[in-house]
Amino acid sequence: MGPKKGILERLAEGVVIGDGGFVFELEKRGYVMAGPWTPEVTLEHPDAVRELHREYLRAGSDVMQALTFYASDDKLINRGNVAGKKFTGAAVNAAACKIAKEVAAEGDALVLGGISETPTYLSGGGKAAVQAEFRKQIQVFVDHGMDFLLCEYFEYVEEVEWAIEVCKETGKPVASTMCIGPKGDMHGVPAGECAVRMAKAGADIVGVNCHFDPFVSLETIKLMKAGLEKAGLKPFLMCQPLGYHTPDAGPQGFIDLLEFPFALEPRLCTRWDFHKFARQAYDLGVRYIGGCCGTQHHHLRAVAEELAKERGKTPLSSEKHAPWGEGLALHTKPWVRARANREFWENLKPATGRPFSASMSEPENWGVTAGSKLMMQHAGVTTEAEQEEVRRFKKGGGKH
Amino acid sequence: MGPKKGILERLAEGVVIGDGGFVFELEKRGYVMAGPWTPEVTLEHPDAVRELHREYLRAGSDVMQALTFYASDDKLINRGNVAGKKFTGAAVNAAACKIAKEVAAEGDALVLGGISETPTYLSGGGKAAVQAEFRKQIQVFVDHGMDFLLCEYFEYVEEVEWAIEVCKETGKPVASTMCIGPKGDMHGVPAGECAVRMAKAGADIVGVNCHFDPFVSLETIKLMKAGLEKAGLKPFLMCQPLGYHTPDAGPQGFIDLLEFPFALEPRLCTRWDFHKFARQAYDLGVRYIGGCCGTQHHHLRAVAEELAKERGKTPLSSEKHAPWGEGLALHTKPWVRARANREFWENLKPATGRPFSASMSEPENWGVTAGSKLMMQHAGVTTEAEQEEVRRFKKGGGKH
Amino acid sequence: MGPKKGILERLAEGVVIGDGGFVFELEKRGYVMAGPWTPEVTLEHPDAVRELHREYLRAGSDVMQALTFYASDDKLINRGNVAGKKFTGAAVNAAACKIAKEVAAEGDALVLGGISETPTYLSGGGKAAVQAEFRKQIQVFVDHGMDFLLCEYFEYVEEVEWAIEVCKETGKPVASTMCIGPKGDMHGVPAGECAVRMAKAGADIVGVNCHFDPFVSLETIKLMKAGLEKAGLKPFLMCQPLGYHTPDAGPQGFIDLLEFPFALEPRLCTRWDFHKFARQAYDLGVRYIGGCCGTQHHHLRAVAEELAKERGKTPLSSEKHAPWGEGLALHTKPWVRARANREFWENLKPATGRPFSASMSEPENWGVTAGSKLMMQHAGVTTEAEQEEVRRFKKGGGKH
Amino acid sequence: MGPKKGILERLAEGVVIGDGGFVFELEKRGYVMAGPWTPEVTLEHPDAVRELHREYLRAGSDVMQALTFYASDDKLINRGNVAGKKFTGAAVNAAACKIAKEVAAEGDALVLGGISETPTYLSGGGKAAVQAEFRKQIQVFVDHGMDFLLCEYFEYVEEVEWAIEVCKETGKPVASTMCIGPKGDMHGVPAGECAVRMAKAGADIVGVNCHFDPFVSLETIKLMKAGLEKAGLKPFLMCQPLGYHTPDAGPQGFIDLLEFPFALEPRLCTRWDFHKFARQAYDLGVRYIGGCCGTQHHHLRAVAEELAKERGKTPLSSEKHAPWGEGLALHTKPWVRARANREFWENLKPATGRPFSASMSEPENWGVTAGSKLMMQHAGVTTEAEQEEVRRFKKGGGKH
Repeated sequence: MGPKKGILERLAEGVVIGDGGFVFELEKRGYVMAGPWTPEVTLEHPDAVRELHREYLRAGSDVMQALTFYASDDKLINRGNVAGKKFTGAAVNAAACKIAKEVAAEGDALVLGGISETPTYLSGGGKAAVQAEFRKQIQVFVDHGMDFLLCEYFEYVEEVEWAIEVCKETGKPVASTMCIGPKGDMHGVPAGECAVRMAKAGADIVGVNCHFDPFVSLETIKLMKAGLEKAGLKPFLMCQPLGYHTPDAGPQGFIDLLEFPFALEPRLCTRWDFHKFARQAYDLGVRYIGGCCGTQHHHLRAVAEELAKERGKTPLSSEKHAPWGEGLALHTKPWVRARANREFWENLKPATGRPFSASMSEPENWGVTAGSKLMMQHAGVTTEAEQEEVRRFKKGGGKH
Repeated sequence: MGPKKGILERLAEGVVIGDGGFVFELEKRGYVMAGPWTPEVTLEHPDAVRELHREYLRAGSDVMQALTFYASDDKLINRGNVAGKKFTGAAVNAAACKIAKEVAAEGDALVLGGISETPTYLSGGGKAAVQAEFRKQIQVFVDHGMDFLLCEYFEYVEEVEWAIEVCKETGKPVASTMCIGPKGDMHGVPAGECAVRMAKAGADIVGVNCHFDPFVSLETIKLMKAGLEKAGLKPFLMCQPLGYHTPDAGPQGFIDLLEFPFALEPRLCTRWDFHKFARQAYDLGVRYIGGCCGTQHHHLRAVAEELAKERGKTPLSSEKHAPWGEGLALHTKPWVRARANREFWENLKPATGRPFSASMSEPENWGVTAGSKLMMQHAGVTTEAEQEEVRRFKKGGGKH
Repeated sequence: MGPKKGILERLAEGVVIGDGGFVFELEKRGYVMAGPWTPEVTLEHPDAVRELHREYLRAGSDVMQALTFYASDDKLINRGNVAGKKFTGAAVNAAACKIAKEVAAEGDALVLGGISETPTYLSGGGKAAVQAEFRKQIQVFVDHGMDFLLCEYFEYVEEVEWAIEVCKETGKPVASTMCIGPKGDMHGVPAGECAVRMAKAGADIVGVNCHFDPFVSLETIKLMKAGLEKAGLKPFLMCQPLGYHTPDAGPQGFIDLLEFPFALEPRLCTRWDFHKFARQAYDLGVRYIGGCCGTQHHHLRAVAEELAKERGKTPLSSEKHAPWGEGLALHTKPWVRARANREFWENLKPATGRPFSASMSEPENWGVTAGSKLMMQHAGVTTEAEQEEVRRFKKGGGKH
Repeated sequence: MGPKKGILERLAEGVVIGDGGFVFELEKRGYVMAGPWTPEVTLEHPDAVRELHREYLRAGSDVMQALTFYASDDKLINRGNVAGKKFTGAAVNAAACKIAKEVAAEGDALVLGGISETPTYLSGGGKAAVQAEFRKQIQVFVDHGMDFLLCEYFEYVEEVEWAIEVCKETGKPVASTMCIGPKGDMHGVPAGECAVRMAKAGADIVGVNCHFDPFVSLETIKLMKAGLEKAGLKPFLMCQPLGYHTPDAGPQGFIDLLEFPFALEPRLCTRWDFHKFARQAYDLGVRYIGGCCGTQHHHLRAVAEELAKERGKTPLSSEKHAPWGEGLALHTKPWVRARANREFWENLKPATGRPFSASMSEPENWGVTAGSKLMMQHAGVTTEAEQEEVRRFKKGGGKH
C-alpha cells in the first residue's frame, strides 16, 4: 500500500467526511467540564478519547482531528482554570496527536491539527501575542506529522486571518472555518466577506463549524459561496455544524440560547436530519462534511450512508444499521415493523414529548463583543464583584 | 478490605444507584442494531461495552449489570436474526459477565445478571419452554458468581412470575421490574396487582423499568406501592425509567410512539429532569434508582449528585461537573456566566428548536398482544406476505 | 300553525341544538366586563344582545336562552360591582327574557330562563338564603312565560340540588348542567354521582356546561351516563362546552389556566373541532348540544351541519357556508381551491403561529373552595389588605 | 359644531385609529361566505354590518370604512359567484356607504371608500379595463360624499398605481396600502420601492394591510419608511395588519398557510399583542393604525387604550374594560384576582392548549402569480378539469 492520499487530493476526487463533536460528547460521558471544555482529557482519560475517535472512524470519518480545542496555554489558565498549572498546552496537544494517529492507522484516515480562538484576542492582546499562542500548538502538530491544519471556531475574521497566516508557514494544507451564521462575524463582517478573507489569507478549504444547526449553516455557506464566486476564488467548501436545531439563535448562535449548554437535549438532530443535511450540503458543492458539538456517531454515519453512492462505500458501522430504518423488519411488534421504510422516517416530524416547552427561546446577547470590558479575560477566578456587575448589567436590560 | 456488602444490605442502609441504558447508547455509537438490539456486542466489541460500564461506574453506579438483554437463544434466532448462527446465548452471556466483573472490580460495584421477556412466551410457548430459556442464561450467571439476579423488561406479569420462580432456585437475591405504565400489563393486570404478584413470587426488589419516562414511571410505582401496602408486603422499590419524555404514550409505552426508535431525540431528558426524578423517587421510598433506554452517564450522575447528601459521597465524574451548572462561572461570555446557578436550570423549560413539531404524537398500537396471530414470532425472516398483512391491517384501521 | 313543541318532546324526537356563549363574545364586542360579566347589558345594549341571539338562531339554535348569567341580586353588588345600584336583578332578567322571546319568534325556537351559582352560597349563606336568590329570577321567567328552566354553571352539587328544587316548583321542564370535569365537583363529589343527584332532584335533562373543552366535557358526560345507568335513571343528556381547548386544566377548568380570561385566543376551537364534537356527542347519546364561553356562531353552525341528516335540515346561515370548506372552489388561488374538501380540514392539525408558546400551561388553584375564608364574597370592593393577603398566599406556595 | 376635520388634518395632529376586519368577522357570524367574501351582505344583512361598524366606533375607530371589499363587478361574477346576477356592484357599494355614514354620524368618525385588486388584473386585462372597474366603485363614493379614498389589498404595485391614478381624479385625499410583507410584491418589487411608487403616484398615506401579522407588517413598514426617506418622500404611514400570527408565512402571507381560512383560530392575537403592536407602530411613526382580517373590537380597543395618552381620550367601550386586566379585581377566585395587573398580561406567553399542533406550518405557494395560466380568472364555476389540473400540479411538486 502506498502513502495515504492527501486532503486536497481527496477533496478533488470526491467528498470527505469529517468527524463529529468531541467536547460535548465527552462532557456527557463524564470526562470533560462544560465551560473550559478541559482538553487535558487527552492526558487524563486517553482511553475515552480513543474510543470516541474509533466511533467516528467506524461511522465513516476520513479525518481524525486531534482533540486540541481550547488547548492553548492562555486558555488553560483563564478565569481560574487550574489545568494550566498541571499541564502545559504542549503536553495536552501532543497527547491528542498521538491518540489521533493511533486510531487513524486503524483505517485509512488522515490526521489533523486544529487551533481556535484565544482569550488573548478577546482581551485585546495584539497580533504578535495571539500568533505566539497559535505557534506553540502548531509546532506540536508539525512535530507529530499531522497531515494538514485547521483553524476552526473563530468568531472574528481578523483573528482567523492571523491564524491562517501562521498555519501557512508550515507548508501544510490549511482549512479554515468560522463559527458564524448568516449575519456574519461578531463585528458585523458579512459571511461572504469572511470567506473571501479566509481564502485570500491562504486557506485551501473554507467554511463554517459549530454555533448553528445544519440548515442555518448551509445558509451561511451559500453566502460564502456567493462571495467567493464574486471574488473569483475557488477554495473547497467545508461544513461542520452543530447537532442541535437552532432556528431561533441570534448572531452568536447557540451560546446565546438559554438552553446552552445543559438543556439542549430537545434540540438534538435525528439521523434523518443529517441525511437531509448531507444531501443539501453535497448539492451545494460542499465537499468536506462533518459535525461539531452535539453530533455523534449516528449523525456522521447518516452522512456516510446518504453519500454512499457518491463515495462508493458504506461505513463500517452500517453492519449494525440498515439504511432508512429497514432493520425494523426484525422487530417483534407489527406496527413497528411497518416503520421499516424511508418514506416513514423522511416525513416524520418528531413530537417533542414536551407540552410545557415552547419551540423557540429568545436568545440572550448583551451586545458585548471583543473590545468590551465585560469580555476581558484573565487568569484569576471570576470575582464576586464581577458576577455582581454581570447581574446588574443583566437587570439593566442586557437581556432583551 | 472485607467482602462487598450485598444488594439487600445496601438497600437496607440507603439508596443504591443502578446503571444507565446500554443498547440504545451502543446503537448510537455504532455497535448494536436497533430491533434485535444484538447483545453479541459483548463478543464483537468488548471494549465498547467496557467503556460504557466505566462511564456508569464514574457516574456513581453501584451495580454493573451484565449486558445480556435479549440474549436468550430463542431471541438470537428470531425473525431472521443471524446472531444465533454465529454465537450461542451462553457465550454472549458469559462475555457480558466477564466485562461487568472486570469493571465492577475497578470500584465497589456489585455485579448483576438479568433475564427478560422471550419470543417463546409471545408465541405461546408454555411455562416449561419459557423457563428453559431462562435457565440457560441463569446458569451462566451462577457460574460467573453474579451477586444477584434481575428479571426486567416484562410486559406480562405471568411471564415474570415464571422468571422469578427460576431465579429463586439459585438462592440469590432477586429483583424484578416490568416495563409497564400506570395502566398495568399488556393483558390489563393493574400495576398494583403486578407488584403484589412479583413480590409473592419471591422478588426481594420490585418495580418498573423502560417504556415510560421518569415521571410516568413514578406514577406506576405509586400504584405498585399502594398495592403492596394493601397486601402487607414490603419489598424494596426499584425504578429504572427511560431517558425520554413520554407523556403521550399508551399502555405499551414508547414502542408505540411514532418516534420509536429512530427519532426520539427531541424527547431526551436533561440532567435536570433526572435531578427532579431522583428527588421524587427518593421521597416516594424508591431505594434502587437507575435508568434504562435513553439514559446516559450525565443522567445517572445527576441522580448521584441530587442524592449526594443521602449517600454521603459524590460520584467520581463530579470532578468534571460542578453541581447545578456552577462551572459556567468559568465561561468567557458574561450572559453564560449568569446561568451558573440552580434557580436558572431548575426553572428553565427548554425550548425544542423545532417549530414544525408538535408536543405529542398519537401512539400506534393495534390492540395486538400475546396470543394474537400477528404477535407470533419465528426464526425465519419476516416474509413479504407478512409485511403485506401488516400493511393491510394498518390500512384497515389498526392505526387510529 | 299550532303551538310550539316543548323541549322534552323535541328531545324525544331527535337532537336539539342549544345556543353559543354570550358573555365572552359580548366582552370582545365591547359591551360586557370580564369578571362580573355584567348582565345588565340587556338593559344597556339590547341591540347587541339581540344581534347575538339572531346569529345563534341563524346557526341552527333551537333554544334562545335569556341572557341572565350572574344576574342574581347578590352578584350585582358583589365586590364593588356597581350594577346593583343602578338596576334590580328583576329588571335585568326581564329585559333578557323580552329579547330572547323577540328573536325566538323570528324562528321556531323555544325560550329558556337560567339560574346559576350564587355568591351567597360561596360565602356560606344557607339553603334558604340561596334559594331566595333563585326564586327572584325564576319569578321573572314564569312571568314572561319562558318555555323551560335551566340550572347551569354550578360547581357544587349541593347548590344545584337547591336550584333544581326551586325550579321544580314551577312545573316547567328543568335542565341542569354543572361546570365540572371528569374529577367531579369542587368538593370532590364524582361526576357520576353529581348526575344522579341532579336527576333525583328532579332534572329532566342533565349534563355539563362551561369550564372544559368539548372533548374533556364528553369524558365527564361518559362518567355521568355510567352513573345514571347504574342508578337506573334516564334523563336526557346535555352538553354545552367551552369553545377553548383545555387539555391541561385542573378540576376547576379554564378558570385556573393562566390564560383566563384575556389570553385564551390560541385555545379557540375551529369549526372542525365542533364537527367532531357534535358527532361524538351524538354517538354518546347526548341530545341537547350547544356551546358555552368561547363558542360563536360558526361553532354552532358546525354542529348543525354535522347533524343535518339526523335533523333533516340545515341552518339558515349555511347559505353562506358550503360544508367542509367546499366554497373555496371559488377562490382565486389554485392551492387554496385545493383545500375545498373534507379530507383536508378533517385531518389538518392547525399550526399555532406561536413559536414562543408552549402547548400547555400549569393551572393555578390554591385548593381554595367554598368554605375557605379566601372564598368569602362581599359587597365592598376588594381591599388592598385582601389583595396583599392573596399575594402572600400565592408566594407561600398557593401557586404550585 | 363646525365641519369634521379631514383625514390629513387629523393625521397631522396625532394618531388616527382605523377600523377592524369585516369579512372574516361577518363570515364567523354567518353572513358572508369565505372565498368570494360576498360584499352583498350590505344589501342582504345591513343590520349585521351596522352592528359591526358600531362595535368599531365604540372601540375608538376614527374612520368608518364602507364595506366594499371585492365589490367590483368583475369579482361579483368570478368563478361561479352568483352575486353579480342578483346585484350590481353599484348597489352593493351604495348600501355600504349608506351604512358607514349612518354609524359615523353617531360619533365623530370620517367615512371612507375603498377599492382593491381585481380579477381583471390577475387575468391579464390591461390598464383601461382595470381602471374601468375602479371608476365604477369610485363614482359611488363620490356620489355619497365619502371623506377620502383608500386603495387597499393590492399584491402588485403596478395595479395599485393604476388605482391611485383613478382615485386622484376625484381630488379627495388618497390612502394606499398593499397586502405585502418584507419580501415585497408578488413580482418581487421590494417593499421600499412599492412605497415610493405609491407615494409618487399620488398617495397621501402609504402602508400595508392584511396578509401578515402586526409584527411582520411593521417590518415591512420599516422597509417602506427607509425607501421613502431615501427618496425624500413624506407621506403619512398606515398599518392595518391581520389579527393572526403569521411568523411562518411566505411572500403571499396567510393565504398560503394551510390554516387559511378555516383553521386560523390558534393564531388569533390577544388584546395584549395589539397593545404591543400599537406602541411599536406609534414609535415607528405610523399615524394611521387599524386592523384587517381577524381583528375584532377588543384588538382595536387595545390600540386606543395603549395610545389613550397620546390621543387624550379613551374609547367608549373602555367603560366595560379596565386597562391591563385590572377589572379582574372583582373576580370571585383569589388566584384570578392576582392577575389584575399589567405585569402579568404583558409577560404571559399564552399556552395553546394544542399538544398535537406544531408552532408553524409550511406555507404552500406554487410560484404562481399574475401572468400564470393557473391564475386566470373567469365567470364560470371552476370546472372539474381545472380542479384535476390543480391536483396534478400539486402532486407534481407544486407543494414543497
